[in-house]
This record gives sequence, structure tokens and C-alpha cells, in this order.
Amino acid sequence: MPAKDIFHESVKVALQKDGWIILREDWYIELDAGLAIYIDLAAQKFIEAEKDGKRIAVEIKSFISQSNMTSFQKALGQFLVYVKAVKKQLLDWTVYLAIPVDIYNGFFLEFNFIREMVEEYDLKLIVFHPDTKEIVLWRN
Amino acid sequence: MPAKDIFHESVKVALQKDGWIILREDWYIELDAGLAIYIDLAAQKFIEAEKDGKRIAVEIKSFISQSNMTSFQKALGQFLVYVKAVKKQLLDWTVYLAIPVDIYNGFFLEFNFIREMVEEYDLKLIVFHPDTKEIVLWRN
Repeated sequence: MPAKDIFHESVKVALQKDGWIILREDWYIELDAGLAIYIDLAAQKFIEAEKDGKRIAVEIKSFISQSNMTSFQKALGQFLVYVKAVKKQLLDWTVYLAIPVDIYNGFFLEFNFIREMVEEYDLKLIVFHPDTKEIVLWRN
Repeated sequence: MPAKDIFHESVKVALQKDGWIILREDWYIELDAGLAIYIDLAAQKFIEAEKDGKRIAVEIKSFISQSNMTSFQKALGQFLVYVKAVKKQLLDWTVYLAIPVDIYNGFFLEFNFIREMVEEYDLKLIVFHPDTKEIVLWRN
């Protein structure tokens, strides 16, 4: 099991404050015999319009240990693998990357190139504030 | 400038043996003010049918420091960023990931999930043998 991201608790609390029920942490999905991924958080929210509510799989990206560009490349690849993994399991979950608000403002919004990549690969983002433990923005 | 990959020399020699001229190493491409990437190798080969020959940008992925799945996610994101970077610069280069033959056989061919990802995102691969310093296979 991978080491918990330093922002794991922040994102968990932020989702709970926003009305989400945390269903799983470090969710193990086997893709093939000998090939698996772990998704940080899985959560569900009941919404009147939808019988089963909405379910999300959330991978937390801290963007602290490498350059932002290197972190972005890894996050992009991970997102695309996770989207496919969830789809192949026929699971009705939407995959999100959770990123700190300072990285969103100072990197994701800052560079045209990154904005275009986010559009092109339809990256879904949960932007959170690590200190207040609140969700600042959803990019759906 | 990033540290040279341990297989840098192997891939360089393998390309040269295959008739490629190495044009640049650690090729710096600025994407936005303050945002750049480095591509390990750029090479060119003159082919009768094409006036300017064929030009390739090669990023070497060793798959040694992390799990293969983590390395794959990073390589996928990097490939997609580099493809877009080259396209945005209006450069007529084809981006390849160079990977060792044991990783190709034991991971890329081994798992259906990975084969499907390679197809879906049209990953172009140069499979090389680190010891003999020869190219084993091109996936175009």
C-alpha cells in the first residue's frame, strides 16, 4: 500500500464537510493478475435527482516532491490510467485529482500550455485548501 | 538540466548503429515563460523518399526506480506532454519513448491493460537492448 499523501486528511475532511461519505481509503483495484492500482479515496453523495447518488474516486496530488511539470506529467498519466481502470471494472465512478489551491492558481491557471492539456484530456479536479480543509473549486 | 538516464549512452549508440544522426541531447523546449521541458535525444535519419528525412525526439525511460505501474503512468503523461509540446512548436518531429527490452516483454506485452493503454494513446516506442546497445523493435 502506498504511503498516505500529506494532504490525505485535509481532502478527506474537506469532502466530508461538503456532504460526501467516505466509502474507502487506499482502494485497491486489480487490473490484471499482478497489476493493480490504489486510489486514495472513494466517496459518495446522495443527490435527490439520482437514485444512487454520485460516486467519485479521488487521487490526491501534493505537487511538492518534484518540479511542478514533473508532478503534472505523473498526475496526468495516473489520471488516465485510473479513468480506464474504473471504466474497465464497469464502475460508475468519476475520477478526480485533488490538488492544493496554490498549485491550481500558480501552475494550472498560470500556464496556457497546462490549461490546454487539462481541456484536451478532460482532467477533473478538486481544488482544496490544505489549512482550512475546504474545497475551493470543482472542475467537472 | 535533469540527470542523464542510466541508459542514455545505450540508446544513443543504438540509434547511431541504426543510421541516425544525433542532433541534440537534453534538448530544452520552452513552452511558456517559466515552463519548459527537456527531451533526452533528438535525431535525424535521411531517407530517400523524404526530402528532410525523418526526425525523432526520444525520451528514455529506465523503469528502474519505482514500480512498473508508477513508471508507466509517469511515462504516459510525459509522452503526451512532449507530443503536444513538439506540435505547439510546429516541429516536424515524432516523439518516442525508449524502453529496455526486458520491460517491454515483461510489462508492456504482459498485461492486457497496458497494451490497451498503448493503443489508446498511440504510444510510440523504441525498444532497446541495454547491453548490446541495439534497437530491438520500433512501435510506430
